Amino acid sequence: MRTVFWQDGQVKMIDQRLLPADFEIVSFDSVDAVAHSIRDMAVRGAPAIGATGAYGMALAAQAAPATTVAALLDDLTAAKETLDASRPTAVNLSWATARLLELAQSAAAEPGATPATVAAALLAEAEALADEDVAINRRMGYNGAAVILDGANLLHHCNTGSLATVDFGTALGVIYACQELGKRIHVWVDETRPRLQGARLTAWELMHAEVPMHLIADNAAGSLMRAGKVDVVIFGADRVAANGDVANKIGSYQISVLARENGIPVYAVVPTSTIDLNLADGDQIPIEERDAREVTHIGDTVVAPEGVPVYNPAFDVTPYRYLTGIVTEEGICYPPFRESLRQAKETAEERIQATRAQRRGAPPTA
Amino acid sequence: MRTVFWQDGQVKMIDQRLLPADFEIVSFDSVDAVAHSIRDMAVRGAPAIGATGAYGMALAAQAAPATTVAALLDDLTAAKETLDASRPTAVNLSWATARLLELAQSAAAEPGATPATVAAALLAEAEALADEDVAINRRMGYNGAAVILDGANLLHHCNTGSLATVDFGTALGVIYACQELGKRIHVWVDETRPRLQGARLTAWELMHAEVPMHLIADNAAGSLMRAGKVDVVIFGADRVAANGDVANKIGSYQISVLARENGIPVYAVVPTSTIDLNLADGDQIPIEERDAREVTHIGDTVVAPEGVPVYNPAFDVTPYRYLTGIVTEEGICYPPFRESLRQAKETAEERIQATRAQRRGAPPTA
Repeated sequence: MRTVFWQDGQVKMIDQRLLPADFEIVSFDSVDAVAHSIRDMAVRGAPAIGATGAYGMALAAQAAPATTVAALLDDLTAAKETLDASRPTAVNLSWATARLLELAQSAAAEPGATPATVAAALLAEAEALADEDVAINRRMGYNGAAVILDGANLLHHCNTGSLATVDFGTALGVIYACQELGKRIHVWVDETRPRLQGARLTAWELMHAEVPMHLIADNAAGSLMRAGKVDVVIFGADRVAANGDVANKIGSYQISVLARENGIPVYAVVPTSTIDLNLADGDQIPIEERDAREVTHIGDTVVAPEGVPVYNPAFDVTPYRYLTGIVTEEGICYPPFRESLRQAKETAEERIQATRAQRRGAPPTA
Repeated sequence: MRTVFWQDGQVKMIDQRLLPADFEIVSFDSVDAVAHSIRDMAVRGAPAIGATGAYGMALAAQAAPATTVAALLDDLTAAKETLDASRPTAVNLSWATARLLELAQSAAAEPGATPATVAAALLAEAEALADEDVAINRRMGYNGAAVILDGANLLHHCNTGSLATVDFGTALGVIYACQELGKRIHVWVDETRPRLQGARLTAWELMHAEVPMHLIADNAAGSLMRAGKVDVVIFGADRVAANGDVANKIGSYQISVLARENGIPVYAVVPTSTIDLNLADGDQIPIEERDAREVTHIGDTVVAPEGVPVYNPAFDVTPYRYLTGIVTEEGICYPPFRESLRQAKETAEERIQATRAQRRGAPPTA
C-alpha cells in the first residue's frame, strides 16, 4: 500500500500520527484539508510530502468551481500557495506543486482546453510523479539487494521506508527488494532516539511486511556487531557531499565507526537527487539542533529533571571513509566517491532529460 | 546527602522511585518496611542496598521487644531472613546482613552484654559500613580526578553516582572530586537507553550538585567526540575480568570504540570488590537479557508496535584494549591489566585485614 494515493476523487493517506498504535487511512476532499494533513504530519518524509502536494493540486483542479480555464489557473495558483505554506522547509513540496502548476499552464494552452481537460492532465501528472518516486526507490532497492547475501543480518537506522516515500523506501527498499528476491534476511532495527522513528515506524513497516526483525535500543548495536551478529549496515541520508560524506539521522556516524571496527560493510542508500555536488564535504552541512523536549519527554512521560540543559542535534556526518558504498537508483557508487557520485548524478540527469523528451513526443537525445 | 542514613532512630532514604519528578526522604521504623523499600526499589544500586540492609539490622535490634541477649539474637536472625529475601540477587545485601549478625554474636558474647549494648554495637557497625562505602568512593574519586584536566569535557554513561552507593558514587565520584578540587569541568550525560538512568538519575544528581552538564541522546555521543567536544570518557562497571575486560551497562562498548577512534582516553571506575580475578576474560561474563517492555514502553507511553520482537541485553563487554585505565580506591590500574589489577586487589585485601585487626585492638600485621 502506498503512503499517499488517489482514490474515488479523494487524496488518501496512512495517518502516521496514529502509528504504531493505530492504522488508519484518512481521506481528504479539499486543498485546505490536504494542507492541514501535511502541517500536522499525518504524512512526513520529503518524497511523500512532494507526492501529497501533487495530489493536492489535482484535487484543487477537480474541486474548483471555475467554469473557464483562466479561472482554474487562478484557483490552482492559490492552491499552490496554500499547500506550499503547510511545510515551508520541505523543498520537495514546492518543487512538486510548481511542476503541477507548470503542467496546468501547458494543458491550458492546448487547443480546445477546458477545466476538465486541465484537471485530467493534472491528475495524470500527479500519478506520474508518485509512480516515478516508487520506480526510483525500486531501482535503488534492487541495486542495494545485489550486495546482500542470503541469510544476512542487516542493521538499519531511523525510518527510510515506505512511509517516508510514496512506497518502497530507500534503505528499507533494499530490504523489501531482498524479500521480493526470496533472500532470507533478518533486520536489527535501531529504535533511533530521540524521535524513535525506528521503533515507531520501521518496526511497524517490517512487521507488516513480515520481514524477520528485532527492535533494539541504539546502545545494543555495537555489542551485536562485536558478537558477529551483523553482516551489513544500511541507512538513508539527508544530504551527500561531493566527496561522499553523508549527513543522516543522529547516530549514523556511530554505527558506521563500529561497523568498520568490526569489519562490517556500510551502505548509505539515497536517490541521486540527494547528492549535492556543490558541497565539497560534509563539514559544510549545517547540523540542525532540535527541541530539548524530544529528549526529556516521551509522549506524556517526563524522563529527565525539569530545566535540564539538553544538546539535541538531529543529524550527524559520517565521513566517506567509513562507507563501503553509496547505493543510488543508477547503481552503487564506490570510492573514490568524487568520481562515482558525479557519474551517477550525470546518468540520472540524462535519464530525466530523455523521459521528458519522450513525454513531449520528441525522440530521446542521443 | 546520603542515599540512605540513620536519624532519630529510623532508617531514612531518598525515594528513588519518585526521581526525577519529586525528591522525598522516606523514613522506616520497622524491618518489614525497610525490606519493602528494597523490594520496591525505593533504594537501588548494590552498595546502597548493602548499607540499607545493615541499617535494617540495627533497626531490628533497637525495635526488638527481646529482654534477653539470646532472644535478641533470634530476632536478628529472623530480621536477616526478611531483609535478604527482599532482593535475593544483590550479593551486597546478604553480605552486609551477615556482617551485622556476626557482629551481634560477638557483642552478645562480651561480658555484661545486654540487648541495649548489642543494639548499640550494631548501629555503630552499620554506620561503619556506610562510612567505609563513602571512604572507598572518595578515594576512587580523587584517584580518578588526577587524570582529569581543568576545563575538561567528560562523557558519562548510566548512573554511577551517589544514588547507587551510600554517597559520592564511582565514576560520578570522579566528577564530584574534580568539583571539590576546584577543577572546572563539563559533563555530557548519556541518557542511557533503555532504562534512562542517565536522564533520570545522573542528570538529577549533577543538577543538584551544580556541575555544568548537558543531557544527550546516546546517539549523539559519537558526533560530539568527532567534533572534539569530549576529552575523557568515564563509566562504572558491574564486573571486571582478570585481563581488564569490563562488563557494564549496554552502550559502554560503543562509546569506548568511538573514543579510541577519536583519540579520547577511556576510564572505568570501580571498587576493587568489583574485580573478579577468577574470571579470565569478559567473554565468560553472562549477559542478562531483560524484558522487552523496557524498550517498547516508556512510562505509560507505548513507542513500538504491539508484539514486536525485541532484543534487550542489559550489559555489554568492553575489551580491555579500549580502556586507558581502570580507576580503583587503591589507585589507577594501567595495562598490562592482569598485573595491575592483581596488585590493586592485593593492596585492598591488606588494607581490609589491617583495618579489621585494628578494630579488634591488635596491631596491624607488618
